[in-house]
Amino acid sequence: MRIARFSIDGNVAFGVVEGEPSDPDGPVLDIIKGHPFAEFERSGKKVPLDRVRLLPPVLPSKVVAIGRNYAEHAAEMGGGVPEVPVAFFKPSTAVTGPGDPIPYPPFSQEVHHEAELAVVIGRMCREVPRERVQDVILGYTCANDVTARDVQRAESQWARAKGFDGSCPLGPWVETELDPADLGIMCTVNGEQRQLGRTGDMVRSVADLITHITEAMTLLPGDVVLTGTPAGVGPLSVGDEVAVTIEGIGTLTNKVIKRG
Amino acid sequence: MRIARFSIDGNVAFGVVEGEPSDPDGPVLDIIKGHPFAEFERSGKKVPLDRVRLLPPVLPSKVVAIGRNYAEHAAEMGGGVPEVPVAFFKPSTAVTGPGDPIPYPPFSQEVHHEAELAVVIGRMCREVPRERVQDVILGYTCANDVTARDVQRAESQWARAKGFDGSCPLGPWVETELDPADLGIMCTVNGEQRQLGRTGDMVRSVADLITHITEAMTLLPGDVVLTGTPAGVGPLSVGDEVAVTIEGIGTLTNKVIKRG
Repeated sequence: MRIARFSIDGNVAFGVVEGEPSDPDGPVLDIIKGHPFAEFERSGKKVPLDRVRLLPPVLPSKVVAIGRNYAEHAAEMGGGVPEVPVAFFKPSTAVTGPGDPIPYPPFSQEVHHEAELAVVIGRMCREVPRERVQDVILGYTCANDVTARDVQRAESQWARAKGFDGSCPLGPWVETELDPADLGIMCTVNGEQRQLGRTGDMVRSVADLITHITEAMTLLPGDVVLTGTPAGVGPLSVGDEVAVTIEGIGTLTNKVIKRG
Repeated sequence: MRIARFSIDGNVAFGVVEGEPSDPDGPVLDIIKGHPFAEFERSGKKVPLDRVRLLPPVLPSKVVAIGRNYAEHAAEMGGGVPEVPVAFFKPSTAVTGPGDPIPYPPFSQEVHHEAELAVVIGRMCREVPRERVQDVILGYTCANDVTARDVQRAESQWARAKGFDGSCPLGPWVETELDPADLGIMCTVNGEQRQLGRTGDMVRSVADLITHITEAMTLLPGDVVLTGTPAGVGPLSVGDEVAVTIEGIGTLTNKVIKRG
C-alpha cells in the first residue's frame, strides 16, 4: 500500500494511492480517516493525484542518516567502509517534499545529490532486536541526502553540510509492502543517469542499522532512517532537476533553485 | 524574568518565577496565559514552586550544539580550537528536564558531563546578522551536553555519542534578562567542583554562533543552541548527582541512574 500526505484546499490529509500513472484516469487518493500510525479506515472519498499537492510523506521529529554504507561510494569518498556505522542527524527543518525546490545554500559552492532508501518508523521504539525491526517500520520512501560537499570537508561534524534547509527531500509516498533487501536505486540529473545501485550492496542491512541506532536513542512514529547512498554522487547547479527513483516505490523529483 | 515550564495536576503550563529560594514562602510561579513565544499575560494564579514538577523549559525541535568553544577544553581534548566552529545536533528525544534522571547508556563505559550555557530561540529565523541576534533570543538556561566519550572517539559523527536518550538535560528555567558575555559557569558531581569557567572565555560569542548556524538553517521558537563547555569534563557513574550552575540563571541538577 502506498500512503501519501498531501494538501488540498488548504487542508492536510493522508491518502492511499490507488492505480498507476499509466491508468487512463491516473492514480487517485483515497483519503484516510485519521493517520497511518494506527489502525485506520479509508474514507472512500477519492481525489485525483494530479489535483493535490504532495507533501513530505511524514513530518519526522528527526532524520537519522548513515554514511558510507555502500562500499563503492565509501571508496569514491576516499577511505573505506567504517568499522562502526557513521550516524548523523538531519533536522526537521531540512525536510522538504516531492516537487518542492532545493534552495542552493549560499555558503557552499559544491552541493551534491545522494539518492537513498529511507525507512519510515511506524511506532515508538528503543533497543529493537534484529528480529523485531520489521514491527517498528511503517514503510519506505525515497530520499535525497543533499550535501554541501565543500562544507563537509571543512567541518568535522556535518550539521551545516547536511542539515541546511531543503537538504532532505522525502517522497513521493510511503510504500508499506516492500522487501528492502535488493531494490534498484537510481539518481538522475536533468534526465541523465548519475547514480545506479542496488540496496543489496548495502554494507549494513536496514535491520542492522535500526538495531544500531535504537541501542542509543528512541525513534518516534514518523522518524526517518536514511540508509546511505550508492556510488556516483556529484554536483548540482541552480536550475537542475534531480530525481531519485527506487524500485517498487516511485520517483522523488526536486528542482534546485537560488535561495531567496 | 524567569519562565519555567511545569506540570501540575496533570496539566502542562508556563509560569513566571517570582521570589528566591531564600524567601520565607519560597519562590512561586505566576501561571502564564498562553506561551512565552508571543506577548503574554500573567494570570495572577500562583502556585508554590515546590508544589510543581519542573519540565524542560522548552521542547526544542532541535538542539544545535557547538564543540571546542573554550580553548582550555579544546586543549584537554587534544588538538586546539577549530578554524570553523564544530556544529552538531542533539535530537528532541535527548532532552530531559531539571530533576529528571540521566539513564546511563549501556553501550558506553565512559559517560562525561559537559556544563554549557544554552541559548533559547524565541522566534523563527534564518540568516540572522550579528546585530539582529538579540532579537531572536528568548533567553538562557543551563544545559548538560552529556557525552559517551568512548563512543565519541570510536565514531566519526556524534549522533550516538551525544544523541542518546537523556543526554540533554535543560533547565531549571529560561532567564530572559541576562547579558551572556561573562557569566560564571560551574559543574559539580556529588557536590564536588569539576568544571569552573566563564562564558567570557568562549572562542566564539553567542552572536557569532547564531549567525554561523542560521547561515545554513532555520531555527524555530524553542530551539536551543549549546555554546560549548569549559575545561574539566570528566566521568559520571550510576548514582552520581551532577549539577550545572550558571551565574544569573540557577542550577540544573540530575541524577545518573541505570537504564531500565
